[in-house]
Amino acid sequence: MLRGHLQPAMADDFLLKPNPTDARLSARVQGRDQTGAAVDISVVVERPLTLFLNGREIVTMMTIGDYPQYLAVGYLLNQNMLAADDEIVGVEFDAETETVVVRTKRVTDYEEKLKKKTLTSGCAQGTAFGDLMERFETVTLPTDAKLKTSWLYRLMRKINTAPSLYLEAGAIHGCVLCQGDRPLVYMEDVGRHNAVDKIAGWMFLEKSDPADKIFYTTGRLTSEMVIKTVRMGIPILVSRSGFTAWGVDLARKANLTLIGRARGARFVTLAGEGRIEYDADARAVAEEDAAARRKGARDDE
Amino acid sequence: MLRGHLQPAMADDFLLKPNPTDARLSARVQGRDQTGAAVDISVVVERPLTLFLNGREIVTMMTIGDYPQYLAVGYLLNQNMLAADDEIVGVEFDAETETVVVRTKRVTDYEEKLKKKTLTSGCAQGTAFGDLMERFETVTLPTDAKLKTSWLYRLMRKINTAPSLYLEAGAIHGCVLCQGDRPLVYMEDVGRHNAVDKIAGWMFLEKSDPADKIFYTTGRLTSEMVIKTVRMGIPILVSRSGFTAWGVDLARKANLTLIGRARGARFVTLAGEGRIEYDADARAVAEEDAAARRKGARDDE
Repeated sequence: MLRGHLQPAMADDFLLKPNPTDARLSARVQGRDQTGAAVDISVVVERPLTLFLNGREIVTMMTIGDYPQYLAVGYLLNQNMLAADDEIVGVEFDAETETVVVRTKRVTDYEEKLKKKTLTSGCAQGTAFGDLMERFETVTLPTDAKLKTSWLYRLMRKINTAPSLYLEAGAIHGCVLCQGDRPLVYMEDVGRHNAVDKIAGWMFLEKSDPADKIFYTTGRLTSEMVIKTVRMGIPILVSRSGFTAWGVDLARKANLTLIGRARGARFVTLAGEGRIEYDADARAVAEEDAAARRKGARDDE
Repeated sequence: MLRGHLQPAMADDFLLKPNPTDARLSARVQGRDQTGAAVDISVVVERPLTLFLNGREIVTMMTIGDYPQYLAVGYLLNQNMLAADDEIVGVEFDAETETVVVRTKRVTDYEEKLKKKTLTSGCAQGTAFGDLMERFETVTLPTDAKLKTSWLYRLMRKINTAPSLYLEAGAIHGCVLCQGDRPLVYMEDVGRHNAVDKIAGWMFLEKSDPADKIFYTTGRLTSEMVIKTVRMGIPILVSRSGFTAWGVDLARKANLTLIGRARGARFVTLAGEGRIEYDADARAVAEEDAAARRKGARDDE
């Protein structure tokens, strides 16, 4: 094949995606099936990662362990321990001690945040130090952002067929930052909050503009998932899973386009539907999807 | 029908189960489908619940709001803020202020716990104040507990067909405390940690013996889910979803029977398989399951 042939396809490639062949991310485990026969299956590995901000210990996270720098920066951003205008002068990961150190130019005010706590529901983020809603109400999402339904179907197909730890071992969440019909950055982790934080960290360090992005996630569209998407400045949020009432309320207040139950040809939009352009033939997608299922696509967990 | 006919069936009934007809637990929301047509769907409601222990504010949780007393007591137990021998002298819920107050005879030592924090992965529990592993290593699970595969198949069928918020609105986790082939207590919530805590609270207040119980949960078998089950003293843990490597390690250390990927006739056991008695015909279950699917059973999320 000529290299020239690959060029148009290259523009469609992920910038970052899971590496299911990385031996550190999963383990083979022996067990028994329903008849008592021996089986050997692949399971994801969790490991501790201790985060320091300017020399002070903040938290120990359990993570699959890839992209620790993005996870660290995204965690601090989403906990309001870093501000959008904070300048990061270094992010150092040490694999042996399982630590990551983030250094900023300005002294940070995270100690105030540690005094307050809210235990939140859903998988999005276990605990928020500080006020989760902080800055939420000050965000204005771009109204001229668009989502064509043909993009949505192409995104779903690319994401669902990309090699991933989910396909390899299951029991994992995935989040994908997309632009148009292109999935850019695909992050996985045992806790969804970690996958979200890795994308937030990537966007901050790469100075990625959120205004033309689409955020795809596994798992439910809870209030917290909505708050994080809005705070990242991304105008469109999509999931295969369902909604919670408070998530819908907040999405409507923020004018976030909120799409759930996106499976095969079907999806439901409960907020910000003005950004959607219905250009795809849902019936054709349904037929294509049925054909793919017959080839043995896996169910979501 | 004669009342006498119902008696044997009554012994099979849940003691406590979701009430999907409770209007406070879900809301109807208008939206658009994939063609742009108007749709009207049911979504679960999250509401805040602020927990006090002996007059001191501990945390604000987001919950669907049913069984606040069990949630409060279970939360305190699972955070090590209550000990097994603590005597609870009152649990008061006030719907108007959305608060619940737990009062104990002895002064509690939770303030020490607030000093430490671990952010954990997965949906099980966002944050643990204090050492999650505390007491884990001191638990000895009963080795004479049994799980017949015929019980497991009957439990799954009863749980999957019980009216629930999951069937009504989706986007929710469920946990079920079972005994033999009988599901006793079925709790749901947006965050799985809340559903687990409600069952822990029920067991504590009802003085339920864990030794002959089976814990069924939606969602992944993470380290945290394993730790909580062991700390509750329950010897068998079952999920439709998959495993994480650390969850498997901990289950093996504690001799917990760990069963995952339980769907239709299939399941995988990765720890404590000595408690399983293979008395069912998996092939017959597979056929029955296929017939049920044709009748339109819903996929898990």
